[in-house]
Amino acid sequence: MLVGKVTGNIVATQKTDTLDGFKLLLIEETDINGTGKGKFIVAVDTVGAGHDELVLYATGSSARLTPQTQNKPVDAVICGIVDSIEHNGKETFKKN
Amino acid sequence: MLVGKVTGNIVATQKTDTLDGFKLLLIEETDINGTGKGKFIVAVDTVGAGHDELVLYATGSSARLTPQTQNKPVDAVICGIVDSIEHNGKETFKKN
Amino acid sequence: MLVGKVTGNIVATQKTDTLDGFKLLLIEETDINGTGKGKFIVAVDTVGAGHDELVLYATGSSARLTPQTQNKPVDAVICGIVDSIEHNGKETFKKN
Amino acid sequence: MLVGKVTGNIVATQKTDTLDGFKLLLIEETDINGTGKGKFIVAVDTVGAGHDELVLYATGSSARLTPQTQNKPVDAVICGIVDSIEHNGKETFKKN
Amino acid sequence: MLVGKVTGNIVATQKTDTLDGFKLLLIEETDINGTGKGKFIVAVDTVGAGHDELVLYATGSSARLTPQTQNKPVDAVICGIVDSIEHNGKETFKKN
Repeated sequence: MLVGKVTGNIVATQKTDTLDGFKLLLIEETDINGTGKGKFIVAVDTVGAGHDELVLYATGSSARLTPQTQNKPVDAVICGIVDSIEHNGKETFKKN
Repeated sequence: MLVGKVTGNIVATQKTDTLDGFKLLLIEETDINGTGKGKFIVAVDTVGAGHDELVLYATGSSARLTPQTQNKPVDAVICGIVDSIEHNGKETFKKN
Repeated sequence: MLVGKVTGNIVATQKTDTLDGFKLLLIEETDINGTGKGKFIVAVDTVGAGHDELVLYATGSSARLTPQTQNKPVDAVICGIVDSIEHNGKETFKKN
Repeated sequence: MLVGKVTGNIVATQKTDTLDGFKLLLIEETDINGTGKGKFIVAVDTVGAGHDELVLYATGSSARLTPQTQNKPVDAVICGIVDSIEHNGKETFKKN
Repeated sequence: MLVGKVTGNIVATQKTDTLDGFKLLLIEETDINGTGKGKFIVAVDTVGAGHDELVLYATGSSARLTPQTQNKPVDAVICGIVDSIEHNGKETFKKN
């Protein structure tokens, strides 16, 4: 999984039927301090992530292994909200 | 999923049987403003995307999870037409 | 799918049994003008592509979704021969 | 598989149900000497890897092929602890 | 598939049960002349590749499509030993 920040969302009214009802969030990949790298992906949210929250997301076929995304054309899914990141004994990120 | 712009198409009369009948669109990956990055992929269209439209596309095995592309050698599929992109509270792209 | 040019082939007499009989072509990824980028992949040919031809190839698990490559350790397959590429209303490549 | 070092962990109390109970380790990809490259991934641990240990990790759908990660939205799994790496006849890494 | 050279191996006594008995080879990706690019991957060997030999390897889920690697957390497998590479009518590599 990778760590990213929810920076916004995508509206797409015309889409494949099976994607109806999904919140499509814009995720910016971040480093271990939670700083954005300028690289974006659009992910389906399954955990109720909010704007500016740091999240864990899975990509590829593993993105279809949540109850909500099974058998759907989804290649990126938010599977957790990051509370904190510890790197070499130091906390590099902590959720407010 | 990634965001890209439909910039053209590919004609390939000689192809694997199971790809017959598909529109093969040329997609240029874009940033969150809809500006092309010079990186292209060929995707199957399942939503009737038109030239110059911004689209969402799924890659890898997830590209086979639409009714049209099931069990076909397709690794990129257009699954939505982007109406707007919001990033950090600002609209970075809006469809005309 | 990506666009590439057939530039040669690989001979490998000692290989996994299930790959016996496959033509293993050397493909150079190209831009939308058909110009090589210096990045190579080895793909199984299912459409009878010839030397110097521009082809469409699928990668990952989708490369196993042709009748010939099913259930085989193949991660790149040629699935079409490119006749022409149109980008922003201009023909950037046309097969001779 | 790739070689990386366990440099820390991620706490995410709010996550997809099926990820409950997993240790989510922060892995820094390394070169063949065990030196970090500054590129991180979050992986599920199935072998009891400890801090600072060099590990082998599998990514993509193969990360779901351990008894613990089957059918879960996991795209990176630690599948071994590296004792030593030999490159061109020299030992480039040996576990203390 | 990609072309790489066997430059060494990895010892990992503590690993996922299903990986027991596999030779884990260190592969350096090469160009079409067989020159290393400094990019390494660890692959399971299914063809008896020896040190310094040029090999073909498959990655991703396709690495599990050999009899030996089926249903195992393997994302890279050696599936052939390269005898020769021909590029634009010239032999760029020939096995001694």
